[in-house]
Amino acid sequence: MQIEPTRLLADLHHLRSFGRHGTGVVRPAFSAPDIAAREWLASMMREAGLEPVFDAAGNLFGLPPGPGPCLMMGSHSDTQPEGGWLDGAYGVISGLEVSRAARDHVPVAVVSFQDEEGRFGVLTGSKIWSGGLTLRDADQLQDLSGETFATARARMAHLAGPGFVDPARFFGFIETHIEQGLWLDLAGEAVGVVESIVGIGRMFVTYQGEQNHAGTTPMDHRRDAFQGLSAFNARLNEALAAVATPTTVWTIGHVEIQPGAPSIVPGRARFSVQWRDGEADRMARMATIVSQTAEAVAAERGLGCTLDQGIPVQPRKFDDGCVRRSPPPRIRWRRAAGAACHQARSTMPPMSPS
Amino acid sequence: MQIEPTRLLADLHHLRSFGRHGTGVVRPAFSAPDIAAREWLASMMREAGLEPVFDAAGNLFGLPPGPGPCLMMGSHSDTQPEGGWLDGAYGVISGLEVSRAARDHVPVAVVSFQDEEGRFGVLTGSKIWSGGLTLRDADQLQDLSGETFATARARMAHLAGPGFVDPARFFGFIETHIEQGLWLDLAGEAVGVVESIVGIGRMFVTYQGEQNHAGTTPMDHRRDAFQGLSAFNARLNEALAAVATPTTVWTIGHVEIQPGAPSIVPGRARFSVQWRDGEADRMARMATIVSQTAEAVAAERGLGCTLDQGIPVQPRKFDDGCVRRSPPPRIRWRRAAGAACHQARSTMPPMSPS
Repeated sequence: MQIEPTRLLADLHHLRSFGRHGTGVVRPAFSAPDIAAREWLASMMREAGLEPVFDAAGNLFGLPPGPGPCLMMGSHSDTQPEGGWLDGAYGVISGLEVSRAARDHVPVAVVSFQDEEGRFGVLTGSKIWSGGLTLRDADQLQDLSGETFATARARMAHLAGPGFVDPARFFGFIETHIEQGLWLDLAGEAVGVVESIVGIGRMFVTYQGEQNHAGTTPMDHRRDAFQGLSAFNARLNEALAAVATPTTVWTIGHVEIQPGAPSIVPGRARFSVQWRDGEADRMARMATIVSQTAEAVAAERGLGCTLDQGIPVQPRKFDDGCVRRSPPPRIRWRRAAGAACHQARSTMPPMSPS
Repeated sequence: MQIEPTRLLADLHHLRSFGRHGTGVVRPAFSAPDIAAREWLASMMREAGLEPVFDAAGNLFGLPPGPGPCLMMGSHSDTQPEGGWLDGAYGVISGLEVSRAARDHVPVAVVSFQDEEGRFGVLTGSKIWSGGLTLRDADQLQDLSGETFATARARMAHLAGPGFVDPARFFGFIETHIEQGLWLDLAGEAVGVVESIVGIGRMFVTYQGEQNHAGTTPMDHRRDAFQGLSAFNARLNEALAAVATPTTVWTIGHVEIQPGAPSIVPGRARFSVQWRDGEADRMARMATIVSQTAEAVAAERGLGCTLDQGIPVQPRKFDDGCVRRSPPPRIRWRRAAGAACHQARSTMPPMSPS
């Protein structure tokens, strides 16, 4: 099976022409360029021997002949308000090209999910299709201008067929994607296999110290909330480094120091801690380290400590058989970039959390 | 010479009655309670054998008979918008009581400076009297409501004499003051001698890093401005501790982290550094440590670094002979609290910087 690189690139450039804007693309879900792009994609699917099927959510499937389970490839063709020309598009067009190349050997379905970029919700089209959101609930969602999903999808009503494509038609799903991080670039590699989507842990910590005059309060009689934060940060870096892999990350991104005056010993510090990793065990271990470090530093410094734990996003490992059956990758890493590979079932998770 | 403790306390409580508010006092400069309190103080001075003299700035002097140079004692009787009942008041009333007790032995003048608490400027009354501010310039100063010093002092015009008391009439000035810090309390002592007024050094530091996605940027490819601040803080604590005395203090009180989102690696950190010490040499050494540490941490982490140095307040040592001639103190420390003691000349410095 050989793909045709020229055709692949020509299709990518053609898709780019819908909503082209500078070097990027403006093609939000259900906009005129988005709908035109989907109609063009449907014609390309038909040309490739696939049956184009729109569902009520605006998702476009290209289905190979026959009822049997097949592999699905694809991504999304809507963009951020100002998006890059390869994000999503590369996954859809490369899926189409693979399907064409594989046509006489194995059936490969192609998909472009709708509103992956969250004009209305989060991964709206794939979530409705995979059962995570009812169409009725989705219809209430509004974009920033107040337009509802119901109004937007009505613009595609003339294309939509009855019902939804049965997820049981697919035994697997592969999404190819340009890298959104630095890993391939740093490794000098062209391609890699993603093994999981990282989980996200989040916590807000509040340290309550004692607000004091910065001139009259001796150093060893202070309960300085900022010093608490700084000590916590140093200790956390050390503790997390001990369990981290090269792809584990953690961030203190939001910091409030009160009252915030140069002449006043800070009485209160509130800050965010966020951590990401591909393995549930490590995520849990990191959560424990964050809490315990926050509390230990507070106790040592006589600070009050309030932990406000956000709902974590659980990491999702991709189907191991599918990952293993991929051509031997020269680099493997855990990130929502590169080639996503997992079992497509009704529990299909989002493919690239932001 | 014996003071009369009962009379001292009775006078303190009477002064408290002007503008009494809860457990504290509301007696801002030139308010009705402030002027009434000054008129009562003048009558008490006269009773004590002193000649009460108001000057055009609202300062009230109680002068002993005779032209010869004498010691002056006192403080201020105006208060913060909501002040304590002993701040300033204790210095004025204790000066009055000492003058009464010393009456037949040595002449002691008493003073209550006006607007020490800075309704209009900074230590307005004593600054005008000591030549640091002209009356004409002072008249332009406005309080928070927009009222000018000129308008305010006109309310005391019926009391003001011509010109100002000649500072050369005094060979020394002693201000007694309640402790505003913790030192006496920690030492279990009742009284101490202040050897100097601390200097204040101040700097704003801006670290410019690289704002990045907290999910896709590996730890060792970040230029995180908050991490820069945290590392600077740890390094600074270590470096300053090596030169600090027990009374040296330093504070990071103002912190801005941008953009301030949990999911974004901070691109910018702007923060204040303030340090205080009683010795000019140490103040200069600390300034160097702050700058060098800020720049060293920035260089190591690839951060941009901008230092915005504020105008420092120089420390002021009190007259050594005067400090040495004080009754052997059980505790000596450098702070603008306790008993201030220095030569009163036309260069008289502020007595208690805030």
